[in-house]
Amino acid sequence: MNLNYVEFNENRSFIGRIPYGEDLYEFLTTFVQDKSIKAGQISAIGAVTRAKVGFYDQHNHRYIEREFDKHLEIASLTGNISILDDKPLVHAHILVSDDEGGSYGGHLLKGTQVFLCEFIIKEFIPEKELVRSKDEITKLNIWEMDEA
Amino acid sequence: MNLNYVEFNENRSFIGRIPYGEDLYEFLTTFVQDKSIKAGQISAIGAVTRAKVGFYDQHNHRYIEREFDKHLEIASLTGNISILDDKPLVHAHILVSDDEGGSYGGHLLKGTQVFLCEFIIKEFIPEKELVRSKDEITKLNIWEMDEA
Amino acid sequence: MNLNYVEFNENRSFIGRIPYGEDLYEFLTTFVQDKSIKAGQISAIGAVTRAKVGFYDQHNHRYIEREFDKHLEIASLTGNISILDDKPLVHAHILVSDDEGGSYGGHLLKGTQVFLCEFIIKEFIPEKELVRSKDEITKLNIWEMDEA
Repeated sequence: MNLNYVEFNENRSFIGRIPYGEDLYEFLTTFVQDKSIKAGQISAIGAVTRAKVGFYDQHNHRYIEREFDKHLEIASLTGNISILDDKPLVHAHILVSDDEGGSYGGHLLKGTQVFLCEFIIKEFIPEKELVRSKDEITKLNIWEMDEA
Repeated sequence: MNLNYVEFNENRSFIGRIPYGEDLYEFLTTFVQDKSIKAGQISAIGAVTRAKVGFYDQHNHRYIEREFDKHLEIASLTGNISILDDKPLVHAHILVSDDEGGSYGGHLLKGTQVFLCEFIIKEFIPEKELVRSKDEITKLNIWEMDEA
Repeated sequence: MNLNYVEFNENRSFIGRIPYGEDLYEFLTTFVQDKSIKAGQISAIGAVTRAKVGFYDQHNHRYIEREFDKHLEIASLTGNISILDDKPLVHAHILVSDDEGGSYGGHLLKGTQVFLCEFIIKEFIPEKELVRSKDEITKLNIWEMDEA
């Protein structure tokens, strides 16, 4: 079994809120780029006025997009930060819940509009830069890591 | 874009379990108040004998409550700690799953009874106290933060 | 109310990816045993080619197993690490989402096959070792903790 990993130390930590009307994915991206956070972890809860998530089609290697055009709670948001094309990239998955508790999830896409969101972001200083590049098997941009 | 945030350092960290029969929200609240944790992060997994969650009605500015009167796994619990009315307040969202895997989520309310729960709580020392007050747009108690 | 907990400090932190085809639970277990991580926290996102989760039957004290034999996103994975029978044990709950966003959750079991997974693991150094033993009430292996 190959253990592909890097060790890291933690650096700056941020807690904040995203105002009404912002795009959730774009806000997080702007935040980490503004703060030059090249590696890290994201967690958030809150509510949105609409959501858009992706499901990766593992056969055809493209994201199927699903829109939920209704008010929803952000029941969970889990993400990480690394480098793609020399810029900080946010990769986050989200679960949203409707007024009956019904839950929908997937890869967070642009098009998810914030009602109110509370986030925690921790910056990592990895022993080796966390850079994404195209993987031949999955056709996704995955972390370059030595196989240990 | 306004980036409303504060930086923080971490302080004490706690890992623990919540016994059978406790109210999940009340236990977490008692814990953070007992330990005087004024800012922080909560994560938990476990199981409950019943759950009660809220969905914020964004038009009418009140929580719609949903009860799930059955045994459920806590598939995810994500929360934060800050100050409301001079006391530590827990704000947590939860996802629960039933015996077929079906998942329901929302804002954690009193009325969620623990079967067994394992939690991790990290205390933050923010550069500026994390205090909630009423927001005119959402009618929710949101963090007072300077717009940067 | 009994507050059953231990305080801990953080030690090593790891960020990594799990390759295509690995069993998610077995990989995480191998990783923490290989690194001798005796206490800690796990978070992950990604995708799987199939999933298997458990629901704890609180009356009959056994896990009901549910298999989802389709491609799914890992919308959330939350877990902890502690000691059972002198070895590091992974306890994780997962939420997976299908191509329509529909979400299913439960206790992560062997039988969940990775398409690609990105994980973050933090090692804890608790003030007292985090050891599981059989609990009479729930029949689960729970942490031995003094009641405070």
